[in-house]
Amino acid sequence: MDRQEQKISNAVIRRLPRYLRVLGELDKKGVVRISSGELSDMTGYTASQIRQDLNHFGGFGQQGYGYNIKDLARAIEGILGIDKKYSMIIVGCGRLGNAIANYIDSYESQYRIRAVFDVKEELMGKEVAGVPIRHQNELEDFLASEPIDIGVITATKERAQSIAGQLVDGGVKGIWNFVPADIAVPDMVSLENIYMADSLHVLTYSMNHKER
Amino acid sequence: MDRQEQKISNAVIRRLPRYLRVLGELDKKGVVRISSGELSDMTGYTASQIRQDLNHFGGFGQQGYGYNIKDLARAIEGILGIDKKYSMIIVGCGRLGNAIANYIDSYESQYRIRAVFDVKEELMGKEVAGVPIRHQNELEDFLASEPIDIGVITATKERAQSIAGQLVDGGVKGIWNFVPADIAVPDMVSLENIYMADSLHVLTYSMNHKER
Repeated sequence: MDRQEQKISNAVIRRLPRYLRVLGELDKKGVVRISSGELSDMTGYTASQIRQDLNHFGGFGQQGYGYNIKDLARAIEGILGIDKKYSMIIVGCGRLGNAIANYIDSYESQYRIRAVFDVKEELMGKEVAGVPIRHQNELEDFLASEPIDIGVITATKERAQSIAGQLVDGGVKGIWNFVPADIAVPDMVSLENIYMADSLHVLTYSMNHKER
Repeated sequence: MDRQEQKISNAVIRRLPRYLRVLGELDKKGVVRISSGELSDMTGYTASQIRQDLNHFGGFGQQGYGYNIKDLARAIEGILGIDKKYSMIIVGCGRLGNAIANYIDSYESQYRIRAVFDVKEELMGKEVAGVPIRHQNELEDFLASEPIDIGVITATKERAQSIAGQLVDGGVKGIWNFVPADIAVPDMVSLENIYMADSLHVLTYSMNHKER
């Protein structure tokens, strides 16, 4: 990575997927270019914030022309790294694990699910999103035999940290955690959590504090 | 709401569910009190940040004693408003809607699912988390007949905005959106989005930018 990229703040990175979503919708509608002002209307970020964000990655915009939608989308995909392929396993195959597996299979073609694990004997031999369910006992051996980029944790809270440990020992580069637990991982492993309860509780707070 | 509460920043509110999660785990282990230093080790926030955050809500901590875990948890629940009951409907009953319904039913006892909606004829009459699936044609009438606090959107991207409009017209106070679309709602309605793709793509960025 070059020195310029290192300075990009987390906040900027977190805005990029939103830009990408809006650009994707515009592209589908056949729109070719867009100004920072129009992007502002669509994202809720200010035009100057948008220009600043996108300037981090080199000057995409041209004065009086705006941004070419396809070029900008491709550039953001490159920055995020989603122009490459990633291998993934899912540990925990309840309803949520199932939903995530099918979501990835249907909508996130850069991510390939290589295996799904659970502890329930009755699930063994069944398939999720075209991938057979394996017993969690096999997780260590599986990771030793096949390099995996991302481990998804959709198991129970009680097992989350030990699964994370196995994933780390097995060499995954990133953990995508859906379990309501604060998982510890070494610095060299990336961790993203989706805490559904936290989101629901923040929504509840907001509902209780709106002026009506 | 009193004037003091109004000044609490969004960032503080977003940290509260995490405190609550940690406090819940400690309480289950039988721990009675905790210092801001220990809370810092468990949450990753600094002790001074924690003291500042919790001071917003009145002086829970006592010098040399720390925080009483049950009292602090109860206070945070009160601030978030999750000591009250909320009615909820879920619109979109695919795998994700199903997973969310069962998660709410199993783990979030303050939220009561009143109905689940979909457009697929073959789902009509079936149940999810003990609640019958209704046709989305009935959504408007349902909302007119029963006040609902929270509408969850787990339908398709294309229908998300029109569903949000129906929910708003039907008087919901909050929308919990899982669809990768930027939904517009009036100021008086609260909106929380869970954008799974955004989280996955930020994880991917992070994996690509770690020093190894």
